[in-house]
Amino acid sequence: MKAIKGNIISTCRFGELSILEQGFLILDDRGRIVSVTEQLKGEQNYLPVADYGDRLILHSFADMHLHAPQYPMVGMGMDLPLLDWLNTYTFEVEARFADTEYAREVYRRLAADLIGWGTTRVVMFSSLHTEATWILMEELEKAGIVGYVGKVNMDRNGKDKLQETTEESKRETLRWLEGCRRFRYIRPIITPRFTPSCTDELMDWLGTLAQQRGLYIQSHMNENLEEIRLVKELVPDCDRYWQTYAKHQMWKDHTVMAHCVHIDESEIAALKEANIVVAHCADSNINICSGIAPVRRLVKEGVWVTLGSDIAGGAQLSMAEVITMTIRSSKIKAMQEGEEKEFLSVAEGYYLGTVSGHRYFGAGEGFCSGDFLHAIVVEDSDRISLGREMSLKERFERVIYRMKKENIAVVYSEGRKVIDKIQVQERIRAE
Amino acid sequence: MKAIKGNIISTCRFGELSILEQGFLILDDRGRIVSVTEQLKGEQNYLPVADYGDRLILHSFADMHLHAPQYPMVGMGMDLPLLDWLNTYTFEVEARFADTEYAREVYRRLAADLIGWGTTRVVMFSSLHTEATWILMEELEKAGIVGYVGKVNMDRNGKDKLQETTEESKRETLRWLEGCRRFRYIRPIITPRFTPSCTDELMDWLGTLAQQRGLYIQSHMNENLEEIRLVKELVPDCDRYWQTYAKHQMWKDHTVMAHCVHIDESEIAALKEANIVVAHCADSNINICSGIAPVRRLVKEGVWVTLGSDIAGGAQLSMAEVITMTIRSSKIKAMQEGEEKEFLSVAEGYYLGTVSGHRYFGAGEGFCSGDFLHAIVVEDSDRISLGREMSLKERFERVIYRMKKENIAVVYSEGRKVIDKIQVQERIRAE
Repeated sequence: MKAIKGNIISTCRFGELSILEQGFLILDDRGRIVSVTEQLKGEQNYLPVADYGDRLILHSFADMHLHAPQYPMVGMGMDLPLLDWLNTYTFEVEARFADTEYAREVYRRLAADLIGWGTTRVVMFSSLHTEATWILMEELEKAGIVGYVGKVNMDRNGKDKLQETTEESKRETLRWLEGCRRFRYIRPIITPRFTPSCTDELMDWLGTLAQQRGLYIQSHMNENLEEIRLVKELVPDCDRYWQTYAKHQMWKDHTVMAHCVHIDESEIAALKEANIVVAHCADSNINICSGIAPVRRLVKEGVWVTLGSDIAGGAQLSMAEVITMTIRSSKIKAMQEGEEKEFLSVAEGYYLGTVSGHRYFGAGEGFCSGDFLHAIVVEDSDRISLGREMSLKERFERVIYRMKKENIAVVYSEGRKVIDKIQVQERIRAE
Repeated sequence: MKAIKGNIISTCRFGELSILEQGFLILDDRGRIVSVTEQLKGEQNYLPVADYGDRLILHSFADMHLHAPQYPMVGMGMDLPLLDWLNTYTFEVEARFADTEYAREVYRRLAADLIGWGTTRVVMFSSLHTEATWILMEELEKAGIVGYVGKVNMDRNGKDKLQETTEESKRETLRWLEGCRRFRYIRPIITPRFTPSCTDELMDWLGTLAQQRGLYIQSHMNENLEEIRLVKELVPDCDRYWQTYAKHQMWKDHTVMAHCVHIDESEIAALKEANIVVAHCADSNINICSGIAPVRRLVKEGVWVTLGSDIAGGAQLSMAEVITMTIRSSKIKAMQEGEEKEFLSVAEGYYLGTVSGHRYFGAGEGFCSGDFLHAIVVEDSDRISLGREMSLKERFERVIYRMKKENIAVVYSEGRKVIDKIQVQERIRAE
């Protein structure tokens, strides 16, 4: 057992911030949380303590939706109309991941970038390439990240270079799953790109496979109005988009649906009933003009909401930036609606970008006994004096709004210290 | 004379990007631009050349609206309702600038941060404190920044600690102006905080003073609906907010009006007719729920639009981030309007955040002969390969979306090299 000490700022419920000044996180020898405490008591005084001093100890981030092969094009093509962006630019870049050397280089950098930003858990799209997907999983695992990664399935409406036949898609999915057994921290997730990309036959096969093997599913839903119209055209027997997943056994507990921007009462009810996880992607939704999702309303109505960077629709990998963009987006929604004046607080955004995603992996809320530690230690000595003592809440707000990579001094993922820029020595405090 | 060499990306007109691969900027001995050229010709071959290699040479940024004394609270208080944010939080922090030592510390860091982000020209609010305002001007000048700084006038509706009597305000304004003669690069600008903060008597006096001494004016206008209602209540004889400035000779060429979020045809006409400079502050307008300004429409209708970080309503000092937030804001507007689907392109945002502001200082558009050089050299070797050659336009878009301070390798302001992290030696190329 050991302990880490610092200013611990956690969230145990949506909107509730728990601030423990100079508190202790007690960990067992595998890095699981034993308890969070104000003071060491009795035998705890003989534990080795890593004292992070005046630094902040926060939850690490969970990025619940992003496209790994779009990492090279982050920040580019933002002036293009959506369909051009997707069909020429995005698909063109994704197609390059047939090249495994290229995939290795890109994914190594992506993994380093993610963990450097304090993102320790991910739910991620790869491309349709089996080898490149394994490489992605390897690089994430090496970097200390925990997550679900999906080889993408798409057997219609792609481009020449970025489409499989139905047979290929099935065969490669099975081959890919076979090769995933070797990973410890990265698990496979079934990933039909979205309804327009998959024939009924493929969807049905994937849904059955997921059911048989107990695999989770991720996809996209209700991102923009044109897409919604297209789905209605393609699947005329389904009144709503979600039913195109439900009819293939895909609308079930822990299915991650990215976006859900344009959504009505009945769809909200369907999300809740099935315990679907919404991955809300505020930056992407603005950048590619999809719309402004009613994120606070979804949470208030009991939908499980998490956040995604959604690169490369999103332009930032930092989940702190994603959180503040989510807050901005909720403020825009609040201004639009007029009657519903409530927007996301910083504490609420923090919950969505951390704990709400960690729950996907079976973790409890807050720093919960029995959970492996997922945390970052934040060095914020670059703050400007207010001419008076700054409260921990103010420091917390500031680091969420202003986080730079260099502020993230230490990263714990699944109980392991995977980044350490400050090398604080563990010391026993009792004499 | 000398030259600098690199990939020169400038903008000569709203929306037009001029990309010169491995081009030369020829400068005279005072750092004024002589010409921009693809190749050195004749005697130019004997000029010393600073070769920045494959790096990008961009316009430096102009931040046309920010509150220097709010710098310590950037990223804090974002959950507060607007009036609480302003009346308790903001005014409380501003009041601390009665302390000159505190002002020195904060303003030194602000100046370093601004120039580090490549912002070489500013139009800025100080607080009402005369000494602190001089300190701000000193620190900006020392850091190599060019700009207009205003001691704020406010003789009503402030808080105890942050209000002057009318007499004090006049006396201190004169004393402050007297002390401004010693500055070379930083000039004073008349700064009534906004109509609600200034009595008619003070406004009249300030307007006359500006007229007599040929001083520019900056203030706020049409930021949010509550403020607009308040102004109507306070000045019942004025039908529109702008008229409360016009009646005191303040509605004139080069007056900077921050925000202009809620604006109709007649107000747009008034802005154009007087050649008012709108300082659009997208991040601030979202953060404090002011509204979404019709920025592209203002430009299209011929209004002079520039950008401001507006810290601490804005949470970011980086004008590259302000530009991308402006683009996001324009996309939100485009989505809201439905019929007007056009949003700002990256090139258009770049124009607004650079050249449009530089024009305030008498500069031409683009890298214009006779102008002092205001430029940044951007090191973007951190880009991820696309698996093919990346175009200069793609690299440009990416650095605008992804600019980190460490990417800004060299900063030229008013012809002087004020930051240089790479120390490229000047060499004569001819043999």
